[in-house]
Amino acid sequence: MDITAQINQFLKDDFPQVRSRVEKIDTRYSLVRHQVIEADLRPGGTVSGPTLFAIADLALYVAILGEIGIKPLAVTTNLNMNFLNKPQANTDLMGECRLIKVGKSLIMGDVFIYSEGQSQPVVHATGTYSIPPKRSV
Amino acid sequence: MDITAQINQFLKDDFPQVRSRVEKIDTRYSLVRHQVIEADLRPGGTVSGPTLFAIADLALYVAILGEIGIKPLAVTTNLNMNFLNKPQANTDLMGECRLIKVGKSLIMGDVFIYSEGQSQPVVHATGTYSIPPKRSV
Amino acid sequence: MDITAQINQFLKDDFPQVRSRVEKIDTRYSLVRHQVIEADLRPGGTVSGPTLFAIADLALYVAILGEIGIKPLAVTTNLNMNFLNKPQANTDLMGECRLIKVGKSLIMGDVFIYSEGQSQPVVHATGTYSIPPKRSV
Amino acid sequence: MDITAQINQFLKDDFPQVRSRVEKIDTRYSLVRHQVIEADLRPGGTVSGPTLFAIADLALYVAILGEIGIKPLAVTTNLNMNFLNKPQANTDLMGECRLIKVGKSLIMGDVFIYSEGQSQPVVHATGTYSIPPKRSV
Repeated sequence: MDITAQINQFLKDDFPQVRSRVEKIDTRYSLVRHQVIEADLRPGGTVSGPTLFAIADLALYVAILGEIGIKPLAVTTNLNMNFLNKPQANTDLMGECRLIKVGKSLIMGDVFIYSEGQSQPVVHATGTYSIPPKRSV
Repeated sequence: MDITAQINQFLKDDFPQVRSRVEKIDTRYSLVRHQVIEADLRPGGTVSGPTLFAIADLALYVAILGEIGIKPLAVTTNLNMNFLNKPQANTDLMGECRLIKVGKSLIMGDVFIYSEGQSQPVVHATGTYSIPPKRSV
Repeated sequence: MDITAQINQFLKDDFPQVRSRVEKIDTRYSLVRHQVIEADLRPGGTVSGPTLFAIADLALYVAILGEIGIKPLAVTTNLNMNFLNKPQANTDLMGECRLIKVGKSLIMGDVFIYSEGQSQPVVHATGTYSIPPKRSV
Repeated sequence: MDITAQINQFLKDDFPQVRSRVEKIDTRYSLVRHQVIEADLRPGGTVSGPTLFAIADLALYVAILGEIGIKPLAVTTNLNMNFLNKPQANTDLMGECRLIKVGKSLIMGDVFIYSEGQSQPVVHATGTYSIPPKRSV
């Protein structure tokens, strides 16, 4: 299995409630797809903030797994979201992450979320994950 | 009905998928309670990031409604979350918001999220809402 | 005068204490150069946080001026800085800004700061400016 | 010397260019005073962003020194500033910091900056410092 398939399998096994799927993993990069369903919507046909948070956080997480291997212990320490444009209700959301710094204990990146096929982003986020130190055996 | 009951009724009517409830509204202040259920949990018994985002965003939103009246059009423009300590899986989460600036078009505040009865916060968040200009009739 | 020269002239006239200069203005884009001097340094030969803040804020400001014209009233409402790598003491710092959303009242962008010729960024920042409404005459 | 005097002496010795002074250090708390001078001002009589950044960063730094002892190696990893109200040009600025989490490797807190005697804050900031691990000898 290539790394994208491995990470999708890991998500399916360990995070069964996550509905987004990874489309692409590359060097310090991820692209995830989220199919918008009724439960994601808010009045007025907009997508809920928690759904957008989940996409941003997942895009960062899987970009990090692509970089350091599938180590589930990485945890979010900061996520800063700017909400820029209203997403479309009936279109998949795409989260595209680029890692900006890959340090030994902290990894930081940014994420753009788009309604598929639209040029204006719905969300821009920056986030930091903390990587637990390697245990000596 | 007092303002707390009015806002809870508004949430029930307009945001049926929101499970948190308002405990207290005061001047530039809100306290919300979120009962943690199975669907909120992640592997290891921790509460998911999107659930914590939802609590922070709601605490800000209802503090703003308490200040400007029940005007559903207020929208989040920024939410910055710092994840500080692991929440408890079997304890209600409390979100406590204080509004820091109430401007005509932007309102900004911060939120602490705690596991009820614990002294160390799980999350500290700051957020900004944009208030649409009054329409002339 | 082209727009880059116009903005440099405006900075010289209206912000005489700003020592950075604009190298390039393009669509939703700016590149600024800051020559590091003794007064910018901190013990250990690192560049001070306020100097890095000034570069990030200026790169955003001039990218906005390039977009909306030279309207000095734009004001910073939020600036979020992540400090990633130690800058070099004897090398110019370059701030590169891309505007992510250009709205009527809020403009948001991000900035990378590099030591010239280095591939790893010193700082990543995101910021939002508020644009005052047009006055009717 | 009490801890406040010790930290002021440390700043004077190691950061001679810092003009702010510590007024009070308490448990997870600091209060710093900054006398606004001509060089801090921008057109229109407002205080420059870099000056406000310097106050926020210093308030955090000295609150941390009060907590972990005078270890100059602590470094800022994130500082997020919200600019709320215009400061007064001829009034001292006060920066008041409360530490929210004191971890082994990361310390996080928030800072309010006020013009002395005013009730509305000029700036609200949150920041994180990284504490280098203890070296074994």
